[in-house]
Amino acid sequence: MRSVNVTTGRTVGIALIGCGTVGTGVVRILQSEIAAIQAKTGIRLELKAVCVRNPRKKRAVRLPARLLTTDPHAILRDPSIDIVVELIGGIAPARDLILEAFRHGKHVVTANKALLAEAATAIYGEAAKHRRLLGIEASVCGGIPIIRSLREGLTSNNISHFMGIVNGTCNYILSAMSRQNSDFTDALADAQSMGYAEQDPSLDIDGIDSAHKLAVLARLAFRSEVPFDRIPVEGIRSLSAVDMQYASELGYAIKLLAIGKRDGKGLDLRVHPTLLPKDHPLSNVHGVYNAVFMHGDHTGDLLFYGKGAGMLPTASAVMSDIIAIAKAVAAQSWTMEPAPEDLPKLPVLPADRIASRYYLRFQVADRPGVLGNIARTLGQHDISILSVQQKGTHGGRSVPVIILTYTAREADLRAALRQIDRRPDVRQRTVVLRVDG
Amino acid sequence: MRSVNVTTGRTVGIALIGCGTVGTGVVRILQSEIAAIQAKTGIRLELKAVCVRNPRKKRAVRLPARLLTTDPHAILRDPSIDIVVELIGGIAPARDLILEAFRHGKHVVTANKALLAEAATAIYGEAAKHRRLLGIEASVCGGIPIIRSLREGLTSNNISHFMGIVNGTCNYILSAMSRQNSDFTDALADAQSMGYAEQDPSLDIDGIDSAHKLAVLARLAFRSEVPFDRIPVEGIRSLSAVDMQYASELGYAIKLLAIGKRDGKGLDLRVHPTLLPKDHPLSNVHGVYNAVFMHGDHTGDLLFYGKGAGMLPTASAVMSDIIAIAKAVAAQSWTMEPAPEDLPKLPVLPADRIASRYYLRFQVADRPGVLGNIARTLGQHDISILSVQQKGTHGGRSVPVIILTYTAREADLRAALRQIDRRPDVRQRTVVLRVDG
Repeated sequence: MRSVNVTTGRTVGIALIGCGTVGTGVVRILQSEIAAIQAKTGIRLELKAVCVRNPRKKRAVRLPARLLTTDPHAILRDPSIDIVVELIGGIAPARDLILEAFRHGKHVVTANKALLAEAATAIYGEAAKHRRLLGIEASVCGGIPIIRSLREGLTSNNISHFMGIVNGTCNYILSAMSRQNSDFTDALADAQSMGYAEQDPSLDIDGIDSAHKLAVLARLAFRSEVPFDRIPVEGIRSLSAVDMQYASELGYAIKLLAIGKRDGKGLDLRVHPTLLPKDHPLSNVHGVYNAVFMHGDHTGDLLFYGKGAGMLPTASAVMSDIIAIAKAVAAQSWTMEPAPEDLPKLPVLPADRIASRYYLRFQVADRPGVLGNIARTLGQHDISILSVQQKGTHGGRSVPVIILTYTAREADLRAALRQIDRRPDVRQRTVVLRVDG
Repeated sequence: MRSVNVTTGRTVGIALIGCGTVGTGVVRILQSEIAAIQAKTGIRLELKAVCVRNPRKKRAVRLPARLLTTDPHAILRDPSIDIVVELIGGIAPARDLILEAFRHGKHVVTANKALLAEAATAIYGEAAKHRRLLGIEASVCGGIPIIRSLREGLTSNNISHFMGIVNGTCNYILSAMSRQNSDFTDALADAQSMGYAEQDPSLDIDGIDSAHKLAVLARLAFRSEVPFDRIPVEGIRSLSAVDMQYASELGYAIKLLAIGKRDGKGLDLRVHPTLLPKDHPLSNVHGVYNAVFMHGDHTGDLLFYGKGAGMLPTASAVMSDIIAIAKAVAAQSWTMEPAPEDLPKLPVLPADRIASRYYLRFQVADRPGVLGNIARTLGQHDISILSVQQKGTHGGRSVPVIILTYTAREADLRAALRQIDRRPDVRQRTVVLRVDG
């Protein structure tokens, strides 16, 4: 058996582009753990440069002036740098810098889920073309080693489906709404005051961030190109305390889930608030924690749980990629995963073809016959009813009726609701939530 | 930047020694997934040989006669074999075959936790000496990629502690005892009839298997040699339904845990039944499922959950090691972790130096003053009481008294109980369980 074993003498050069929260964490870990990492792995890392917008800004870590630059291209041209860590986020200029890094023969580590979701083909394509490695552990679920587990731990499995709580902001808000029976607006304000939600929280609460992470996970889990703009997305903005309450009485928690399923026809990918039975492992994930539940054909059910964001958890994920790639650099050899052009492009199920169980809240006139009419219309559209709960009258004018359905097609449901919501005894637009787990 | 990129043409030769349950699963996955694995990873695997005791035995997989051998040494000498997968279990002859495999330049994959726990220094030492890789993912928690997460995902972290449900047999028995309020003997018989417990279940129910896995995990988590024979171990044989019941009334589940903690003084490693608050993530791990909860200084709390045993989950873990090592073989290059002689040998806390909270069940005469005497003796030994529950009288002769303590030293507790259990109004040996989480 031939082998070229490795002398571990070679120092691997690291540069950061961007030094915000996660970058600060990476610098801090590099500064404190570089000797421990060498002792554990035999790998010698050296931080060679940090590209920042303002070198004079006060930072939480001490960085020698000689490491600081404002020119990312100086980093890309520097032959002593092996691994470029992109931590500026967003599409531009991150996209072009990463493509350029590959062209200069650098390996890249990034936490940029928006970019990985929206420009996957370009990024993976350029990496493949230049035979360079791309580390993306930090892009999904912060400190949880979910990407590595998918890429390496479960390689021989076919993943049939996964469901994840991948946005800590939304989970914090939903946990607060459920615990305190509070409204969305109050829970959001609470999350903002705790620093768990941005001042403009749209990316989180409208489900976009979860959809980015879903695209990243689905690509790895299903080994398929994933067209991000085809993913149906619903956020948590319109969730009301009363539905949290009714769901709870029926034995369900409501969680914002990123759902990926694969069947013979293609990919069923979506982000939406979902009713989960309270004894489902994901129902017990509270606050800013993240968790991903998945099913491999050989492993069976798996759950990964931990902190999905924050300086050190995310920096820990960046470090795991740096170390893994540094091993390849030190070994001067690595294997490449298939290029995007070699991946199948499985079709993504459009929103109206989704099949799901549903939670429906009708607000109806409190008189005989109304429920019968609703049930008949649902039946005419092939929607079978699992249970009906009529809630106490509120002043006699209208009452909420909660219906749980068996699995139905979204298109059928929408058609039925178009008819039902036109009826004069139905007093407001019907609330629709999906049930899973 | 220099690099030697890889042509993926080289076929990597695999041989199995042992073809029982897990081996059958590995053969099945290799036979069905070999093309998919090549498409996903670029790695070409070939099953070259399977060493069995009886080549004529009827098997659940079809194996061509030319692959079967009864001579493991023929495999070790075969230059076309790169990776030897040891699946016979136990110490002899597995130990010598693995050592011999390294000497012949083979890489080794094994699920043998007993061997890894009891002969770690010899095994890792020989691997290091010959610069060969050792895959052990299948040795702990079956299909859960816990080893890979510790080795690679969390490399930059210092793990301060972990707690795991690592034996599915015990967890099945405890879940049954708790759900049906049944006795240990009945629950064990149930587990045996379901095929979840061996006819001789001692290795599982006496905690030995959990201690093996604890040793394997602690070595990786704490980067230290772990003397297996110093680990204090208590199994679940003497657990009674009444303590499950009382614990539950106090808000606790009882789980058999493998616990590893590291502090300035060394390693606190132990296996014992443990009271955990019902809202602790590990309390909700039921049946044959496994889970490991751990705390990294950067990642914070993490939980990994899944099937800890069974043909395909364990085979999936073996496959993940085969593929990872095959990548190194194809790349003709790899890095080595530190040899055992370079690992610190942190001292293991002896049983009497453990500090814990305790659940104590006293069976005492139902008359005034008895409780006061017990409380005074505990106090004299520096043991503070968190709560006391006296349970209803059973026929007037004696009553159970449940005391939960604050953290105390095991030596102090044992000294106090020696005094207390000698008292005439204490009617049976006091039941001691530890509380954590």
